[in-house]
Amino acid sequence: MNPSAPTLPERLRRAAEAAAETYGTPVYLLDWNAVAAEAAAISAAFEDAQGFYAMKANPLLTLLARLAGQGWGFEAVSAGELERAQRAAPGAPVVLNGPGKTPAELDLAAGLGAVISLDALDEIGRVPRGASVLLRVNPGLEPHTHPHLATGAANAKFGLLPADLDAALAATSRAGLKLLGLHVHIGSLISAPGDYAQAFDVVSGLAVRSGPLPVLDIGGGFGPDLDLPRVAALAAQAAAAFQARVWLEPGRRLVARAGLLVARVRSVKRTGRPFVILDAGMTELIRPMLYGAEHPIVSLARAPEGARPAAWVVAGPACESGDILGQSVPLADPRPGDLLAVLVAGAYGSSMASGYLTRGRPPEVILDGEGLSLARRREEPADLIALETFRPIADI
Amino acid sequence: MNPSAPTLPERLRRAAEAAAETYGTPVYLLDWNAVAAEAAAISAAFEDAQGFYAMKANPLLTLLARLAGQGWGFEAVSAGELERAQRAAPGAPVVLNGPGKTPAELDLAAGLGAVISLDALDEIGRVPRGASVLLRVNPGLEPHTHPHLATGAANAKFGLLPADLDAALAATSRAGLKLLGLHVHIGSLISAPGDYAQAFDVVSGLAVRSGPLPVLDIGGGFGPDLDLPRVAALAAQAAAAFQARVWLEPGRRLVARAGLLVARVRSVKRTGRPFVILDAGMTELIRPMLYGAEHPIVSLARAPEGARPAAWVVAGPACESGDILGQSVPLADPRPGDLLAVLVAGAYGSSMASGYLTRGRPPEVILDGEGLSLARRREEPADLIALETFRPIADI
Repeated sequence: MNPSAPTLPERLRRAAEAAAETYGTPVYLLDWNAVAAEAAAISAAFEDAQGFYAMKANPLLTLLARLAGQGWGFEAVSAGELERAQRAAPGAPVVLNGPGKTPAELDLAAGLGAVISLDALDEIGRVPRGASVLLRVNPGLEPHTHPHLATGAANAKFGLLPADLDAALAATSRAGLKLLGLHVHIGSLISAPGDYAQAFDVVSGLAVRSGPLPVLDIGGGFGPDLDLPRVAALAAQAAAAFQARVWLEPGRRLVARAGLLVARVRSVKRTGRPFVILDAGMTELIRPMLYGAEHPIVSLARAPEGARPAAWVVAGPACESGDILGQSVPLADPRPGDLLAVLVAGAYGSSMASGYLTRGRPPEVILDGEGLSLARRREEPADLIALETFRPIADI
Repeated sequence: MNPSAPTLPERLRRAAEAAAETYGTPVYLLDWNAVAAEAAAISAAFEDAQGFYAMKANPLLTLLARLAGQGWGFEAVSAGELERAQRAAPGAPVVLNGPGKTPAELDLAAGLGAVISLDALDEIGRVPRGASVLLRVNPGLEPHTHPHLATGAANAKFGLLPADLDAALAATSRAGLKLLGLHVHIGSLISAPGDYAQAFDVVSGLAVRSGPLPVLDIGGGFGPDLDLPRVAALAAQAAAAFQARVWLEPGRRLVARAGLLVARVRSVKRTGRPFVILDAGMTELIRPMLYGAEHPIVSLARAPEGARPAAWVVAGPACESGDILGQSVPLADPRPGDLLAVLVAGAYGSSMASGYLTRGRPPEVILDGEGLSLARRREEPADLIALETFRPIADI
């Protein structure tokens, strides 16, 4: 049990209660002021850079439009994400990433003027002539250096090995593509600037082969406590080798701490362990089950006088043993009906939600200076069934 | 590399190619004849039992209606699943399970005449008077006996401990509920009848406290090679202690091997490992990433003369290192455009798909004696955005 229970600022506590009251539970709450502050901090650290928000973290149209208003572009990885960028902020700069782009996605991106990051040699010939492209480099970092360097490890599926760069440069030229620069993305939740330094060393060493290029895209993966000014200095140094401007693609860092998942206690029980069962779980936040992620969880209920916190397992309602949001959460006398808030849920919460168990995905509410506003309504069972072609028994 | 590459019957190969041609990729294909054969085999083994298909494995309305036509009821775990049962086969028997049922779900189930399996003491008082109920017993199996006995382990969140049975019986009676029997479900993918025997020993030992009851619900979790007649004999013996009829709730066993996920190769590349990148991955089949599940993968392409199989990593298009469907898949000279089929994907494939990355969920097609028919169309980006309330920049 963690003796130092996290607390929620009073403003957020009131907003979470109001969101639950107005929209029901479970419900996602995103604090726009916190997003804006983080976006501004990143922009300040990387002063001359262009930021592309990695919308996979949280692709709400309202959020995209607001970030575009602050000068951000978007990083997209699918036709659907390209469409989101178009709807939210037509004309905002967009980079299309991904190792398995379809021909339709490549055509769509080129038609929209998005910059396409080429991930493999066999992709180059499929991009429409005249498109602007980056070449994603796999820096071949040794996986044992840091487990989070997963996407930048040589055995990951991403990018071109440095050994393939000359072939890629030649193919890009033959295909009539406009090469803007190189691209590298080393993973997620990186906390040590030295991890970036390793990758930047590999990439900037390629400048002698590529010659000057207008852009160096350093990707994202910024952990919550990563020293941004330090990484910015390293990036500027690497970009100088190409005489390039830095592009960056953070996602989680902008939104993770700005978001809560608010859920209601449905049962309090003891089997071999003491359980608090919520009306939210793996279908609303799969990160604990998928990655072993730890999210702080706090109760919004006032504990009865004299009640002292004990350690509870906080679980979801799904019929899976692994549907657990917190293994040891300090709660004082939890009761059915209490509201709990799962913190740091603004990234990869709603965006990874599934319709598993025909549980409709929760609504998402944005908090700003004006109060609460609904950004996405609750998904109802009828929505989940709407795409099916059902033939009644009599027809079979 | 697995030297014994699985093969696909010619009928399924042709259906998979036709489904990809007609509906695009990725696409799920479900062979109704295989489902019907498995359903019949289960019914034959458990001759006097009532089967409730656990629709969480694959909740397609068309599938539910066809199973109801063969005498199956449904196991549901949410309001959405109750609605599916109602739409597909009104009047079919339904059991509502789950450790975190909401008051609305309890009311809905009671109103529909569904049988409610009570999972905790504090749930009993929330069920409308007159409802028919089961009491789910946690048999408290020691988790070290078998890792798959997860839901039946004492430290799992499910059910009532035997020590709480007398209190539960009294509360059920006080609440004016109609107790049909006890319920036990020990986990999933169970392969040894002895695991059931252990749980049944615990449950049948409770008959001296409960007295005779009309039903013993033995749950599901039948692994693909589980000896069904043996489990049926054990179940009949346990049910005799209550003078009860057996109910059972298999899900995966009916549909897993009947389903394929058909995807197209988008890139063939070598970083530190040789990769085949598909247009399907974690968003369409999360089991390899979530549970380490291994699914056979076969190519539908004709290998060029003389091409010999080598081991490939088969990965999805998502920007996550873990988005891998097969770590060592024997493929002979794979090329972009080839079709691959991921086997044993009929259970927990489409039902767990997410809209992550704004990738629309694939269509699902049913194959039967009449040919192919579309059971669910492809989810388009517009569908994924439809629930959002978007405020254009000018309004902010």
